[in-house]
Amino acid sequence: MGLTVDLHNDVSQRVKGPRNLITDVSGVKVGQTTVDEGDVHSGVTTIFPHTGNLFRHKVPAAAYVINGFGKSVGLVQIDELGTLETPIVMTNTFGVGTAVNALTKWMLKDNPEIGDTTSTVNPVVAECNDGDVSNIRKMRITEDDVNRTLNDAGETFEEGAVGSGRGMMCYDLKGGIGSASRVVTVDDKHQYTVGALVMTNYGYLTDLIVNGMPIGEPLAKLLAETKKKEEKGSIITVLATDAPLNARQLKRMAKRATVGINRTGGYIGNGSGEIVFAFSTANQVDHFPTTDFDTVTRFNDNKIDLFFRATAAAVDESVLSSMVHAESVVDRKGRLRLNLTDACEQLVAQQPQYQEMVSKVLTDLGVIK
Amino acid sequence: MGLTVDLHNDVSQRVKGPRNLITDVSGVKVGQTTVDEGDVHSGVTTIFPHTGNLFRHKVPAAAYVINGFGKSVGLVQIDELGTLETPIVMTNTFGVGTAVNALTKWMLKDNPEIGDTTSTVNPVVAECNDGDVSNIRKMRITEDDVNRTLNDAGETFEEGAVGSGRGMMCYDLKGGIGSASRVVTVDDKHQYTVGALVMTNYGYLTDLIVNGMPIGEPLAKLLAETKKKEEKGSIITVLATDAPLNARQLKRMAKRATVGINRTGGYIGNGSGEIVFAFSTANQVDHFPTTDFDTVTRFNDNKIDLFFRATAAAVDESVLSSMVHAESVVDRKGRLRLNLTDACEQLVAQQPQYQEMVSKVLTDLGVIK
Amino acid sequence: MGLTVDLHNDVSQRVKGPRNLITDVSGVKVGQTTVDEGDVHSGVTTIFPHTGNLFRHKVPAAAYVINGFGKSVGLVQIDELGTLETPIVMTNTFGVGTAVNALTKWMLKDNPEIGDTTSTVNPVVAECNDGDVSNIRKMRITEDDVNRTLNDAGETFEEGAVGSGRGMMCYDLKGGIGSASRVVTVDDKHQYTVGALVMTNYGYLTDLIVNGMPIGEPLAKLLAETKKKEEKGSIITVLATDAPLNARQLKRMAKRATVGINRTGGYIGNGSGEIVFAFSTANQVDHFPTTDFDTVTRFNDNKIDLFFRATAAAVDESVLSSMVHAESVVDRKGRLRLNLTDACEQLVAQQPQYQEMVSKVLTDLGVIK
Amino acid sequence: MGLTVDLHNDVSQRVKGPRNLITDVSGVKVGQTTVDEGDVHSGVTTIFPHTGNLFRHKVPAAAYVINGFGKSVGLVQIDELGTLETPIVMTNTFGVGTAVNALTKWMLKDNPEIGDTTSTVNPVVAECNDGDVSNIRKMRITEDDVNRTLNDAGETFEEGAVGSGRGMMCYDLKGGIGSASRVVTVDDKHQYTVGALVMTNYGYLTDLIVNGMPIGEPLAKLLAETKKKEEKGSIITVLATDAPLNARQLKRMAKRATVGINRTGGYIGNGSGEIVFAFSTANQVDHFPTTDFDTVTRFNDNKIDLFFRATAAAVDESVLSSMVHAESVVDRKGRLRLNLTDACEQLVAQQPQYQEMVSKVLTDLGVIK
Repeated sequence: MGLTVDLHNDVSQRVKGPRNLITDVSGVKVGQTTVDEGDVHSGVTTIFPHTGNLFRHKVPAAAYVINGFGKSVGLVQIDELGTLETPIVMTNTFGVGTAVNALTKWMLKDNPEIGDTTSTVNPVVAECNDGDVSNIRKMRITEDDVNRTLNDAGETFEEGAVGSGRGMMCYDLKGGIGSASRVVTVDDKHQYTVGALVMTNYGYLTDLIVNGMPIGEPLAKLLAETKKKEEKGSIITVLATDAPLNARQLKRMAKRATVGINRTGGYIGNGSGEIVFAFSTANQVDHFPTTDFDTVTRFNDNKIDLFFRATAAAVDESVLSSMVHAESVVDRKGRLRLNLTDACEQLVAQQPQYQEMVSKVLTDLGVIK
Repeated sequence: MGLTVDLHNDVSQRVKGPRNLITDVSGVKVGQTTVDEGDVHSGVTTIFPHTGNLFRHKVPAAAYVINGFGKSVGLVQIDELGTLETPIVMTNTFGVGTAVNALTKWMLKDNPEIGDTTSTVNPVVAECNDGDVSNIRKMRITEDDVNRTLNDAGETFEEGAVGSGRGMMCYDLKGGIGSASRVVTVDDKHQYTVGALVMTNYGYLTDLIVNGMPIGEPLAKLLAETKKKEEKGSIITVLATDAPLNARQLKRMAKRATVGINRTGGYIGNGSGEIVFAFSTANQVDHFPTTDFDTVTRFNDNKIDLFFRATAAAVDESVLSSMVHAESVVDRKGRLRLNLTDACEQLVAQQPQYQEMVSKVLTDLGVIK
Repeated sequence: MGLTVDLHNDVSQRVKGPRNLITDVSGVKVGQTTVDEGDVHSGVTTIFPHTGNLFRHKVPAAAYVINGFGKSVGLVQIDELGTLETPIVMTNTFGVGTAVNALTKWMLKDNPEIGDTTSTVNPVVAECNDGDVSNIRKMRITEDDVNRTLNDAGETFEEGAVGSGRGMMCYDLKGGIGSASRVVTVDDKHQYTVGALVMTNYGYLTDLIVNGMPIGEPLAKLLAETKKKEEKGSIITVLATDAPLNARQLKRMAKRATVGINRTGGYIGNGSGEIVFAFSTANQVDHFPTTDFDTVTRFNDNKIDLFFRATAAAVDESVLSSMVHAESVVDRKGRLRLNLTDACEQLVAQQPQYQEMVSKVLTDLGVIK
Repeated sequence: MGLTVDLHNDVSQRVKGPRNLITDVSGVKVGQTTVDEGDVHSGVTTIFPHTGNLFRHKVPAAAYVINGFGKSVGLVQIDELGTLETPIVMTNTFGVGTAVNALTKWMLKDNPEIGDTTSTVNPVVAECNDGDVSNIRKMRITEDDVNRTLNDAGETFEEGAVGSGRGMMCYDLKGGIGSASRVVTVDDKHQYTVGALVMTNYGYLTDLIVNGMPIGEPLAKLLAETKKKEEKGSIITVLATDAPLNARQLKRMAKRATVGINRTGGYIGNGSGEIVFAFSTANQVDHFPTTDFDTVTRFNDNKIDLFFRATAAAVDESVLSSMVHAESVVDRKGRLRLNLTDACEQLVAQQPQYQEMVSKVLTDLGVIK
């Protein structure tokens, strides 16, 4: 549901979709499993471009690597063919192998021809390292965990410390899953939606800026002792649109996610795996086409800025939404990892001089009405 | 000389070099020619990695295309070989051919073996379209204009509406040449410098944010009638360092220029050619080596964030510096194109309610002490 | 006109176009100027995707860098936007600046809005270093030389030591311009053409293999004294098709040029600038569209191998055709630089044991009927 | 052991290493498991750059995608950081998830700090689709199968229908694992080795050319009925060297694998996942460096052609070696899938007119002495 307010640096046309979620793009669904067992705080979040047979009806897609310190799977083929033929599964770094297996089996089940009379299938799995909060070495994610996200996806879903976002930290505060959407109007008449979903696990608290206010610096001093030393974070972004953008255009759009990611203080850290997937639900590509030629609508790049602007705004809001919706959690070492609101409250309690800034930050984010 | 103040979202170690210019990197020099004749308001700005024989002693280098709506020349070979063997000449879009010719001749003069007994040379020329302000169709830049920048470069140079920046507009206000530097201290003892120089010709006024304040919106309304309709802008960034970064690392560093570029409201527009060149003055590469093997210092990527942070900060400041130092100019159609300060003054004169924001913006930028 | 015979490793459907030239793709034209003055042996060759207004009606296009030791211009924007908006001008390395200027002026002439009310234009100029044969340091190519190719292009053109190929050497024998085409039949009914034009200036004689025969080795020993020591060569490939391939698909096709280039013994040498341009005359992109959405035919990648095969075959044949059609020339140092036929004759004259191989080589190439 | 003979189009210095295997590069080891159960004919082949702690002592590395119709894992991070920190595991397409899991666990075992006090680890797994021969849908490969290759690697290993090559088909004949090496002498004194190992599963029989002879055409007619219809193949290449090439140079070297792959008739088919990994055992990169700066030997690109030539030759020979060493196998449908020798014998038996060509082919390959 993103934020209930508008940010003053929103570069889009400033129209949010009805749910303000990636699922505002018609057909898109999201499934999530949260795993909270002992020192494991992790999960799986899966995004479906559509819930028909994705292998037979692929969607135009692109992947873009902002910074490649990451282990996501499936980019090579997306890059070559410009199509996505499975849902996108997100989980923790050491859940990737299991997610690949579960997703492959799930695809095989519905498509008996895969690996028999036709080619294989390209599972797409993205990851961040939640090892700061969760015991990632246990490799606890099971194929069943993944299957639940594949079998029970919907148009509404929770944000924050849920699904694959359960153990993720954003700017050293609790992050996780965030989503938002923007409506794009072309030529005053054609309406499209751009939806974003992020898994946030990046950033340094000292760099955090909310709507222009450097709230990160005092918070960083406050939480100095629990602050991680080494950047191990990442951010995965998934972009969806119903506009007829082709793979080249989707790649261009994916590249603009970095604008939203950095609005709040990111700088594309060395250890941050920043990977973007973008797909269009228009102009689907059949695996078994009746003809080698079909007719599609093509969008002229002249007006593509509308989509770039929507992307920057939706991603920026998604990042903040992941922080606003995340509850504070106890990590694998028993430390309480605060969310933004709780951290702000602690700051004010200990250093009342920040009352005004905190109040403005939380108001600007819609936390305080 | 960049800005005399610190921005509150400066992600670097916040130490500026002595000149706060790209020339704080030892050996780097800059030459400029400004051409102001009739309806032509253009020029040339050239950056030297060192003023020895660059062809014989190349520097490790990288180029990165943030957005490729641009006509810069020389990237293919930099990308392949990871070296730069000429100064980088910046001019307007239709001056590229002439700049290539002038630069080639200048290289041939000092290197009789080029194109005779050894290979040719790879001239690097970058451009933005100053056609909004200058009559670019006249193709007025001459080889002499370029030669002056090649023959008279120094460690101090002007910023603003000078050199190739003469006709450039940044966020629809007067832009041009900006520069800044940051000192990077590694392991508390090794000091290096990262210098940035930008030619700014990008951005929409409505998006402009200074140190968190959305000053662009009221300014955009004020100047609505002279605002260009179509994004035709670009930004060229040149990064220099004396740290022993290799081509792969320089490419990573170059990628972070986008963080600085977008801090003030950019979103990597469709029509914006955003190209970055980065070079190191360390570990030079001989064209005629006495041995095929040499010994170099290698920097571990573990600490490369220090350079990424310095890049983001220096580029951000360079953009603002280009605007702060640029005078208002009369364009090819006789319209006065305001710089930021003049625009702010007009805004306050007409809408006194912006007095406070304007005052804070100009103070934060060091324009008002 | 390519070769009059079939090569036994032709991987295409083995149907040549009526002219067996790149101009078999309807609308494509080629203009050439040869400059032979004193120690200058150079020229210009220009390829038109169509001879309407290219700026207003751009063609889908891609560029691919096989090896980037080269100075070609215009790739950045082709890569970003997937379109070509000027003819492709080929000349020697130090003619690039002049070609950029001439091509820019030629485009400005027909398009008064360029650089005034709309964006600038992206001139595409490709080059090889003919300095082995020609005095390249004289920078002799003039804008008039370029203009002649722009103003007088046609569907028939010469191959060999003509145009920009005048001074080029291929496998240390005389090379230059070569062209060929292949007809591609999809689903037994849709016919398209793939045309190739190459400027050949690469390869070592010792590596040359013709239709499986290692003729290069004895030739290399024969000509040891005139053989250049350092690889300074390159090969530019231009591919044209009337099939509705988009930029992504054209890039994939461009990549396959390397198969044809290497069939005769190439290995993508360090100093060889190997750059490929590919365009489609279908699905043109309007600069001033009446609508931001249009309807285009899309080709499924499932059958794209037909085009990859045609590319490999047409490029392979084009390389050989450039050698078969090139006359022997006297170079800038007065040395006679032999073409393949003359070299073969010398070989047989001096070493009669090669009579059989030479005879088979020349028969397989159609030189001897 | 590659081939015992020299090919006449070998572009290298023509000196094979003592074993003529990738393990001629000192420290490199290979482990293999072959799985032959019912209709499953598959396996695992793993290459170790060294058998010390790879996570703590990473090797400079590069990955290059010739054609991206493939599901290999780990390229993103190699591309960003230029290092390899695990062995490279090769298996069938649907074994990738399991291989990722096994490899991750194996790395965790020896490195308790991974995912706890330091970053995670980037498992590299490459694949081809052996579904033509093996029942790939059973997903039969187990973590134990992978572990065996990790725990029992050596300097000698079998080629042909073994390990991950068990079910692979090359040019529609039996392929699998092939390897070869070349010694590179720089400046007449410094000796290095380039080793190649390929998993071959690509190509059309009709295109096969051996040492210039088009043997594929008659063989293709002979075997027309068992020929697959759709290209579903791929080829994975691993290159090793002890020369001090950095990641940029290794990427350049990796790109030249395509020359070797295509020498025998390949054309980089649409459905062929052609991916290359290259690493150097020199200039290793410590995960926990004692200093952020170290001193390394750098190799000038001027002489890099020696390595490009060695790569082309070693890969070409490795492909042929995979075919020469592969035994004929019965596939998942009970069809006998012939190796090259058996197919040639059948051809001669049925069409004696090919006796001479077959004899020459097998002699040139060293099969017949």
